[in-house]
Amino acid sequence: MSSSAGIIIIGDEILSGRTKDTNINWIANELNEIGIKLKEARVIEDDKMIIINTVLEFSKKFTYVFTSGGIGPTHDDITTESIAAAFKVDLEKNKIAMNLLKKHYEKSNIDFNEARQKMAIIPKGASLIDNPVSVAPGFNIKNVFVFAGVPKIMQSMFHSISSNLKGGIIIKSKTITCDVGEGKIASDLGQIEKQFLNMKIGSYPYFNPQSFGTSIVIRSEKIGDIDLALEKIIKIIKQFGGKYEIIT
Amino acid sequence: MSSSAGIIIIGDEILSGRTKDTNINWIANELNEIGIKLKEARVIEDDKMIIINTVLEFSKKFTYVFTSGGIGPTHDDITTESIAAAFKVDLEKNKIAMNLLKKHYEKSNIDFNEARQKMAIIPKGASLIDNPVSVAPGFNIKNVFVFAGVPKIMQSMFHSISSNLKGGIIIKSKTITCDVGEGKIASDLGQIEKQFLNMKIGSYPYFNPQSFGTSIVIRSEKIGDIDLALEKIIKIIKQFGGKYEIIT
Repeated sequence: MSSSAGIIIIGDEILSGRTKDTNINWIANELNEIGIKLKEARVIEDDKMIIINTVLEFSKKFTYVFTSGGIGPTHDDITTESIAAAFKVDLEKNKIAMNLLKKHYEKSNIDFNEARQKMAIIPKGASLIDNPVSVAPGFNIKNVFVFAGVPKIMQSMFHSISSNLKGGIIIKSKTITCDVGEGKIASDLGQIEKQFLNMKIGSYPYFNPQSFGTSIVIRSEKIGDIDLALEKIIKIIKQFGGKYEIIT
Repeated sequence: MSSSAGIIIIGDEILSGRTKDTNINWIANELNEIGIKLKEARVIEDDKMIIINTVLEFSKKFTYVFTSGGIGPTHDDITTESIAAAFKVDLEKNKIAMNLLKKHYEKSNIDFNEARQKMAIIPKGASLIDNPVSVAPGFNIKNVFVFAGVPKIMQSMFHSISSNLKGGIIIKSKTITCDVGEGKIASDLGQIEKQFLNMKIGSYPYFNPQSFGTSIVIRSEKIGDIDLALEKIIKIIKQFGGKYEIIT
């Protein structure tokens, strides 16, 4: 039996037409590549009971459920508390998430206030999903993967978990960040990607008040190819005088 | 009571990622303008039982239901027969539709074969929806409006029926941007929102290498309330020493 999936897009801003959803199509293509069949996608309101019911229905029907939206710092971000309620699990300030965010805001000289600490509140027992773009993590509980709504962040989160999904093909990945702008290295990354069979190199620019740079995710079935590509990418970063860090 | 709506996008090609849906966003904007609240949108498979169940569920839940996709001439176009089955109504070759299509194909010197005649098969008692783009009509049965999937055709069909839809309230909005981070003003925005009935204040952070800040959208039926909330928000921005710009 092959794996199935459902997508839940949570957001009044999509239903009002103000924001155009691009996450359904993006995830659909990714799932298709790794051999997981997307069976349904729903756009629903920022409403606790609707989120709870939809998540429970999808969790039962499909192998994997992906949600996007509603995990930011504001009062209308209610995805996390709704999903905790769906699975009857308590919320807690996650220590790892708190540390990540604290460090991030200290570096940027931004006050790590109560609203921002909200992004470290995670259902007990859930595992964190890396966010190489803006730090605040997503999380995975049971078969549900909870992503941010901003496309670049959602994409980086998806790639940080996609190697764990059991589809047809198993895709492995490594992530490296550097302080070189995406535009400078984009064409070199494209060149490197072409040198390998079925390799995908994704790049995700990040910005914060103090610095900017690029997170790079290398994906392939072959870990050996990934390591070779990683070496080539590090060479490019050094050519531009950049610093880098291998994340995973 | 204001009117509500649901959208059902029928199409394996959307779920496989091959085709990018644009109909949800387009209909969402149109509905917003005429004051009908879009409550949910679903992308579902070309599967008879799933179409039947979704149409019946939506028909009960919402004032208006719009479907797109699956009314063409090919074997996998099963929307019409599924909707007839949902409402336990027979199918018939609709005379008006047959005449329209016959004339159209005669003019174009294209054989009006059995496959093309399929597009004239409509549930008994349904009313036709004009298709000024490619003639083959959509139809309306109970509170369900059945459109083609091709965006231009769907749009022309929507416009040919939209003046018959009873909207409720027109939601107005104003947008202001400022150079204060979302996390700083998040809790104040929540406080302001609570001071008005049926007001929604959304906040959307933006980042770029030179600057960062927040766009704030205030939505309400009452333009007076929006202006009052706007004043309060400007006060908050000034408290943080921020600059602002009223966009719309």
